[in-house]
Amino acid sequence: MSGNQEHQRRALSGMRPTGPLHLGNFHGALVNWVEMQHHYDCFFFIADWHALTTGYEDTGALATHTREVLIDWLAAGLDPAACTMFIQSRVPEHAELHLLLSMITPLGWLERVPTYKDQIEQLKDRDLGTYGFLGYPLLQSADILIYRPDFVPVGEDQVAHVEITREIARRFNSIYGREADFEARCRAAAAALGGEAGAARYAALRRAWTEQGDAAALAEARALVASAAGLSALDRERLLGFLVGGGRAILPEPAVLLTRAPRVPGTDGRKMSKSYGNTIGMREDPASVAKKLRTMQTDPARVRRSDPGEPEKCPVWDLHQLYSDAATQEWVQTGCRSAGIGCLDCKKPLTEAIVRQVEDFRARAREFERDPALLQDIVARGGDKARAAASATMAEVRSAMGLAGP
Amino acid sequence: MSGNQEHQRRALSGMRPTGPLHLGNFHGALVNWVEMQHHYDCFFFIADWHALTTGYEDTGALATHTREVLIDWLAAGLDPAACTMFIQSRVPEHAELHLLLSMITPLGWLERVPTYKDQIEQLKDRDLGTYGFLGYPLLQSADILIYRPDFVPVGEDQVAHVEITREIARRFNSIYGREADFEARCRAAAAALGGEAGAARYAALRRAWTEQGDAAALAEARALVASAAGLSALDRERLLGFLVGGGRAILPEPAVLLTRAPRVPGTDGRKMSKSYGNTIGMREDPASVAKKLRTMQTDPARVRRSDPGEPEKCPVWDLHQLYSDAATQEWVQTGCRSAGIGCLDCKKPLTEAIVRQVEDFRARAREFERDPALLQDIVARGGDKARAAASATMAEVRSAMGLAGP
Repeated sequence: MSGNQEHQRRALSGMRPTGPLHLGNFHGALVNWVEMQHHYDCFFFIADWHALTTGYEDTGALATHTREVLIDWLAAGLDPAACTMFIQSRVPEHAELHLLLSMITPLGWLERVPTYKDQIEQLKDRDLGTYGFLGYPLLQSADILIYRPDFVPVGEDQVAHVEITREIARRFNSIYGREADFEARCRAAAAALGGEAGAARYAALRRAWTEQGDAAALAEARALVASAAGLSALDRERLLGFLVGGGRAILPEPAVLLTRAPRVPGTDGRKMSKSYGNTIGMREDPASVAKKLRTMQTDPARVRRSDPGEPEKCPVWDLHQLYSDAATQEWVQTGCRSAGIGCLDCKKPLTEAIVRQVEDFRARAREFERDPALLQDIVARGGDKARAAASATMAEVRSAMGLAGP
Repeated sequence: MSGNQEHQRRALSGMRPTGPLHLGNFHGALVNWVEMQHHYDCFFFIADWHALTTGYEDTGALATHTREVLIDWLAAGLDPAACTMFIQSRVPEHAELHLLLSMITPLGWLERVPTYKDQIEQLKDRDLGTYGFLGYPLLQSADILIYRPDFVPVGEDQVAHVEITREIARRFNSIYGREADFEARCRAAAAALGGEAGAARYAALRRAWTEQGDAAALAEARALVASAAGLSALDRERLLGFLVGGGRAILPEPAVLLTRAPRVPGTDGRKMSKSYGNTIGMREDPASVAKKLRTMQTDPARVRRSDPGEPEKCPVWDLHQLYSDAATQEWVQTGCRSAGIGCLDCKKPLTEAIVRQVEDFRARAREFERDPALLQDIVARGGDKARAAASATMAEVRSAMGLAGP
């Protein structure tokens, strides 16, 4: 597929505004997003409604957090000219699709989402016994499906969330995409796939998927349909739905785009996470960053300066892999294992690199911090573009569900 | 309260579009609505989203049913110049409020709604195990609260539904209506209730409610606040919330307006209901209506023409009470108890009256059936008015929840 065609394919992802972003958010998601914006039609949203599912009681900081996340995105290199950034609550169509999908979503599907019981266990101090918290994977599904993206970039731990989204799309399409003469329409549409040869190829790939479960055949068939010229939008939906044995694919199933998720340890050596209180902020005061790194956990077996250490057991080494060049990494490995350098020596070039990055983020953020009108303009334009896409989907959804007036 | 002031008070009710309306719907709800439209600022909506909670699988007839309900309303005498008629799905703000309220609504509240388990028992052939069906009382709450009505007209069997709406409003106001200086603001606002005397009266009524649970005092205090001139909308919300120990009443608790709900038996003597298949349609063919009445169940103890009957045990008598004048009712009672008249004699004037009414409905409906543009215009204007009211509420709700962008 050519670079140009690839650029037309849509990817969508979001982030909750729970406070300023940290280096874990940067390396875990933003680095990928910044790269992706040049290859896909990217939609990135700040999921302010989602912040309510686990924290409805104190929303005093929600607007500030939303603003901070936007600034962090821009400081990290997301470019409003290259991608669409918007705020979830500014596109109320998400709520409408969430409601409509709720009608067809079995309670059991939501109760069985792996993170549901996990989070109730973990966040014992929060009230998670609400209807909204149970429904959050469904809201996430609506967030995704309303833009009909080709891909959802996620780390391995979030694949289950995309899976329920795919199941809900499949169920929706099989209920509302049924047409009396569906098969005949599909056969007629297949003729537009490059004549008899294209139609035969589509049929063969479809059989390979439905009869032998050949995922490569499914992917090829989807690409064949996606790239066909002269196919109407409706016929495209028919052929995509027919492939998987459903009706018209009104809400196409998005594919998972597995993204690089390097280990980013926090100052205590555990995964960097706000809930562990071990984060280094993307725009934290450099003196504070340096101090946190100075006291950061290292290989616990290296008690004295003269003890040799083992980088593989040291969280500081994980950071070196993200920030240091090959020569420095070599110096760290040798010096640590031979006790040739101490932990403070080892941390010095790393601290310099991280402080440099944080200063860079801060400098870039400053122009946005100073210009609230610019921020508003970015999310207003992004919101307009998102709403246009969401409205188009909702018009089709309403019509498929019979929600057209007298 | 003067007639004019009363007219300003808002009442709201809705109906699901599950098919053409019958005489049970007419006498149970529409008669009251037609009367109410001249005394309150009435909002009546066709709850098409609600029809999905119990019937998402086949929505092919939804648009037709919506149209039929609107025609039945107009035939019954609802006047677009006197009340606001609209379609729920045309005001997507309902879905947004439903989502936002879902964040604060305990699952247990919904699971314990009396009709929830009842309906699952009764409608065994339907799939009611969905997230949407569990949430339908919450959707109903959003439908109501978004218009901040003073009253919700319901029959006794629906009082529980309004109760959960009031609980959700109370919870919302107590979470999001809190202000640091709430009490001081309330005391300042109370001064606008007609100076010292008004403020003292408010304080005394508030104590009577909070300390002795005096409901009459609460009602009087509410009326005092509602009728006060020179009170800002915010201060009004503060004083209403302060009365019940919550925060600012952003979503005021509506009161139940208990309406007359006469017994309307179907042709088999049970309550007239679509699920029993015993209905007489408001616009049914007169020959069919006459035939249904001819074979309608009477007092089961009156087997032979010569057996005396007991009107109190006869469903036909229930209909006479709705349709016949005093003289005819007297004739029925005497004739039935003495076996002076037979059941067919008794049914004759009733059948004439019902057929006359049905013919009247049909004649009035005809002009609307013939004019789809008029129907569209009525719900378009109603929808615009409803959306304006809903948008105003949502602006306040979003702001109270901190959902304002960067």
